Amino acid sequence: MSEKKKVALTGDRPTGPLHLGHYVGSLKNRLVLQDTHTQYVMIADAQALTDNADNPQKVRENVLQVALDYLAVGIDPSKSTIFIQSMIPQIAELTMFYLNLVTWNRLKHNPTVKQEIKQKGFEESVPAGFMVYPVSQAADITIVKADVVPVGEDQLPMIEQSNELVRNFNRIYKTNVLVEAKAIIPKIARLPGTDGQAKMGKSLGNCIYLSDSADVVAKKVKGMYTDPNHLRVEDPGQVEGNPVFTYLDAFDTDLDTLEEIKAHYAKGGLGDSVVKKRLNEVLQALLEPIRTRRAEFAKDPGAVMDMLKAGTNKAELVAAETLHEVKQAMLIDYF
Amino acid sequence: MSEKKKVALTGDRPTGPLHLGHYVGSLKNRLVLQDTHTQYVMIADAQALTDNADNPQKVRENVLQVALDYLAVGIDPSKSTIFIQSMIPQIAELTMFYLNLVTWNRLKHNPTVKQEIKQKGFEESVPAGFMVYPVSQAADITIVKADVVPVGEDQLPMIEQSNELVRNFNRIYKTNVLVEAKAIIPKIARLPGTDGQAKMGKSLGNCIYLSDSADVVAKKVKGMYTDPNHLRVEDPGQVEGNPVFTYLDAFDTDLDTLEEIKAHYAKGGLGDSVVKKRLNEVLQALLEPIRTRRAEFAKDPGAVMDMLKAGTNKAELVAAETLHEVKQAMLIDYF
Repeated sequence: MSEKKKVALTGDRPTGPLHLGHYVGSLKNRLVLQDTHTQYVMIADAQALTDNADNPQKVRENVLQVALDYLAVGIDPSKSTIFIQSMIPQIAELTMFYLNLVTWNRLKHNPTVKQEIKQKGFEESVPAGFMVYPVSQAADITIVKADVVPVGEDQLPMIEQSNELVRNFNRIYKTNVLVEAKAIIPKIARLPGTDGQAKMGKSLGNCIYLSDSADVVAKKVKGMYTDPNHLRVEDPGQVEGNPVFTYLDAFDTDLDTLEEIKAHYAKGGLGDSVVKKRLNEVLQALLEPIRTRRAEFAKDPGAVMDMLKAGTNKAELVAAETLHEVKQAMLIDYF
Repeated sequence: MSEKKKVALTGDRPTGPLHLGHYVGSLKNRLVLQDTHTQYVMIADAQALTDNADNPQKVRENVLQVALDYLAVGIDPSKSTIFIQSMIPQIAELTMFYLNLVTWNRLKHNPTVKQEIKQKGFEESVPAGFMVYPVSQAADITIVKADVVPVGEDQLPMIEQSNELVRNFNRIYKTNVLVEAKAIIPKIARLPGTDGQAKMGKSLGNCIYLSDSADVVAKKVKGMYTDPNHLRVEDPGQVEGNPVFTYLDAFDTDLDTLEEIKAHYAKGGLGDSVVKKRLNEVLQALLEPIRTRRAEFAKDPGAVMDMLKAGTNKAELVAAETLHEVKQAMLIDYF
């Protein structure tokens, strides 16, 4: 039966603990996908090293932290194959073959990469590994023959690049071993930061982490950016674009009450502190069991690494099979 | 004892049979190196695919042809480890790590690559795999910890790039697992074509192949370009830059007689046909035993592939050891 399931690939760069933005945009989705799909969850350490080559300690430590976050939110190793990217040599091999099928110019003009280069301030010093990471990502996706890849809208050019490589490969080597992937864009793809910036980002210091203590969460919620013109309780407040309400939209399951609160806030007479109190309750209710499970798993890091090893071994079997077919198509299956 | 030997890496792209240019510039050298060094001889099929992605059949067929050429000239699998590049996944893995340690700009300005792009007429359509092949070559060299790499002068920027990566890696990851390589430039690095062009090249149709029959060799020698001003036998002839004499310099071991012939030719009174007859004798004496051995080995392609398999397995053990050290230094040796 399970052979008939569609394959999903998701993953994270182990450069820091996961936060609410990851939860809303991706992790929550994976809890569904692991029941409906054959799901692979990749800890992308090799990709993290493309722009953290000189900080391997950070990447190393966060592999375990990200794995703990996965287990804490309920990604279940008996349903999802969690693996470490750098331990799958077939990804590097497939990347090298793909590099022959894409022009240098095409890579230079990848819109996502162009924007990231700007954001990271690389300019002339962009590492070659960073420039080719869309190709590496195509290898990630196709080595497990993923049918669906949940991504943010800004990552769509990556899926396009991957599918273009699949088509090129299948055409040139007269085969159909590789399959194109479909992007799944989550309803709420991106949570704003606690400071109101469009994106929750590790480097922006505006994140609520899944591993934050109850006190830290409460404090971060209290300090959240709201409507800057909502100076007095009796003033009408702005709901639209107010991150406190965006968070409530994302996490509050009592939609009727939420509508009432919004109406009250918009009309005037509802203080920010009351709304924030509600958000804190909602978030604590979500995060408390995650925090508890995380603490439980964190007691035995060895067991977590064993889980990663088992997942990696399982992923490598699939990767080896795909690469075997790839090499066969390329006529480099000598013995 | 053998552990103390320095390591040498050489190799060829399997895009056609090997010719006299390869013999003079490289193969002859390897017959010496295999006694003095721990020698790895790589059939660079993955590199050949960087600009032959759409012609895998050519690459596939020439893997066997190049292996036959090796055995025919006397590269001895009991002394030299002959292996197939694409069968060593560690090379791809190391390449991916190296790509993080070199800027995109640095690759763009590699003088050898720039010239080859021009020669191959790639212009805007240069495959990314071709642009990064110096990095892949650095992985070839360093995965076996080569101390020496015999190369033509035009390949010196490749060795520089490789050593630069070694230094970057060792510095960033605070290690000394990787070693720099020294280029060895052969005395006669390049044989002109039979047509007098500076380089013997498959695509130029000016090669004498190691696998050419006696008749074909005789015919090619007869048709060689000489001194175009040496119209009559009694005219003084030009020795310098005359490819027939360049070949005699490279292959004739009877130096005294050769000096006499040169003097006679320069003075006038010695016809081209006489000099070519001598060259033909010299070449037939060199090529006849090579041709015989080649025909012998060609009878059992399965045995040749078995030899390549054994060499590849041996090389992979060494590559796996190096990659293990590399991953350890990068802190990505999880289990």
